[in-house]
Amino acid sequence: MTIATKGAVKSLDVSDLERNRVPIILSNTYHLLVRPGLEAMRRRGGLHKFMGWDGPMLTDSGGYQVFSLGKMRKITEQSVTFRSHIDGAIVELSPEQSIEMQQAIGSDIMMQMDVVLAPDVPRIIARDAMEQSIRWAKRCKDYLNLNREQSMTKDQKLFGIVQGGIHEDLRAMSVKGLTDLELDGYAIGGLSVGENPEDNLRVAAYTADLMPSDKVRYFMGGGKPEEIVAYVKMGIDMFDCVIPTRHARHGSLFVWGGEVTPELLNEPDFYKKIIIQNAEFEDSDEPVDPNCDCTLCTNHSKAYIHHLFDMKEPLAERLATEHNVRFYMKLMETIREGVENDVI
Amino acid sequence: MTIATKGAVKSLDVSDLERNRVPIILSNTYHLLVRPGLEAMRRRGGLHKFMGWDGPMLTDSGGYQVFSLGKMRKITEQSVTFRSHIDGAIVELSPEQSIEMQQAIGSDIMMQMDVVLAPDVPRIIARDAMEQSIRWAKRCKDYLNLNREQSMTKDQKLFGIVQGGIHEDLRAMSVKGLTDLELDGYAIGGLSVGENPEDNLRVAAYTADLMPSDKVRYFMGGGKPEEIVAYVKMGIDMFDCVIPTRHARHGSLFVWGGEVTPELLNEPDFYKKIIIQNAEFEDSDEPVDPNCDCTLCTNHSKAYIHHLFDMKEPLAERLATEHNVRFYMKLMETIREGVENDVI
Repeated sequence: MTIATKGAVKSLDVSDLERNRVPIILSNTYHLLVRPGLEAMRRRGGLHKFMGWDGPMLTDSGGYQVFSLGKMRKITEQSVTFRSHIDGAIVELSPEQSIEMQQAIGSDIMMQMDVVLAPDVPRIIARDAMEQSIRWAKRCKDYLNLNREQSMTKDQKLFGIVQGGIHEDLRAMSVKGLTDLELDGYAIGGLSVGENPEDNLRVAAYTADLMPSDKVRYFMGGGKPEEIVAYVKMGIDMFDCVIPTRHARHGSLFVWGGEVTPELLNEPDFYKKIIIQNAEFEDSDEPVDPNCDCTLCTNHSKAYIHHLFDMKEPLAERLATEHNVRFYMKLMETIREGVENDVI
Repeated sequence: MTIATKGAVKSLDVSDLERNRVPIILSNTYHLLVRPGLEAMRRRGGLHKFMGWDGPMLTDSGGYQVFSLGKMRKITEQSVTFRSHIDGAIVELSPEQSIEMQQAIGSDIMMQMDVVLAPDVPRIIARDAMEQSIRWAKRCKDYLNLNREQSMTKDQKLFGIVQGGIHEDLRAMSVKGLTDLELDGYAIGGLSVGENPEDNLRVAAYTADLMPSDKVRYFMGGGKPEEIVAYVKMGIDMFDCVIPTRHARHGSLFVWGGEVTPELLNEPDFYKKIIIQNAEFEDSDEPVDPNCDCTLCTNHSKAYIHHLFDMKEPLAERLATEHNVRFYMKLMETIREGVENDVI
């Protein structure tokens, strides 16, 4: 999923997303709740219509943004209260309100609101948060079932989020509690938030293995290309990540180690990254990646995109963003090919 | 001509220019001389190749940017010396060096280097500058004829620039001096630099009338849509202007007063401008202009572009820029239609 935080992928229009075969985008409930707000989103008929995107869309619950952006947040059994990062206004977000906003947005997949914690909290706190997240999942589902008619999109799906930190027994309890609720899909939350890589892979593999095989498995917030390949091997289906778009804005461009085949995805050094501002690219008439069909690689040289970054031209970020998005889309297309051919 | 100052139209890729039927772009010799520089431009094989644009291109001489951007400039008969606006380095630009750089850029149309002055200088200074500009035009032509082989583009054209401030007799002398040199086309310089509108129109009409009818007439740096229509009626053929792109970046969008016909171009109130950040557009599901076929008007509502500006999304400037460029292109297309049908 390509990230469209505030109802737009940074610098890219929906026509670029279509051309680059982006299959699904992710927008952030917290940002859209702060602006333009719930009523405005309803008046627009939902985010698909508002931004002109008719492909699939997932929204997070807002919980993670409250955790990372909100000031002075206070979590109770009922809700989270926090100060808006834009105007300092006090905002309350409950599981029910999160669903109400996600219904106004009209995403195809909604995420339950969960309790997000730092990775290093004591086990007892991780356990409490995990249990509360299950109770909140139930409240999300109950609210949705009672208020289906207010959705801007028919038949919105609701995914649960498995929590439990780096503790395998807590993860197992979380999976059990959530699957009892019979949600539409399940995500692994609370990883890629600062834990060490061994814990990340161990807990992801352990958790994925417990999750129902007939429902979508979604790893929230990961990751680098080689990490995504590793997660797919664990049976995970869906990902969202700011890496391609955020790196692009700083001139960090992904390039393939050669012609792209599913087999080569297993080689860690098949994924390279260049910093296009570096002097070594100033004089290169070659495309950033001869194996890429994005606008940058089709029309322009490394020297040109280097010049655009050097001149702080807004076109630089745009072309770089499209390139990295296309890289990730090709990564996922090739992974799918590899899965179908039993290579991955 | 759409402005591509540093080898890129702000936020737009060459594929956008093609889609919006931009027939010719203008790049700035001064900016490209400072970065990436003459040798780099030669190594790239010229700007067409560098930016991936194979349509026509005009370059200014650098004289105007030295006048408006360079610090501590000193004008002698030989050249202009100034401090670079980027790193403060002392740079010298002579008519010969300007042509040499424009040959490295490989524009299809080069402008002579001229002496640019503020509009309110005493007549004697305006006269001296005008006469020096004729001498510089000859130096440009002589240098070009002796060094044709170093051009990155075959058969580059050289245009002269008529100067003389707001004084009709000086303008007449300038036209005479330049046409004696048998250049490929002629431009009206030194207007739209702060003089009053009456002087602007009077001097433009007077000068255009004196200029050869079998060569292109180019008005440098103008203007608003209604001004361009007025200049065309004087017999002027070519224009460049930062208004569409610069206004767009501030959310100022041109809109038509209705369906576009050549006849209506004569109505001053047929051209409207909206400030899309204004609250009145927050709730509008209508396109910015139903008579426009740009990406913004085809895919999105006023409420959406309002939201993008509100959120400072980089997509805002991009969509707005494409819209205003498309407006100006449609203006010129409709003017041409009107000229052919004798309506303008």
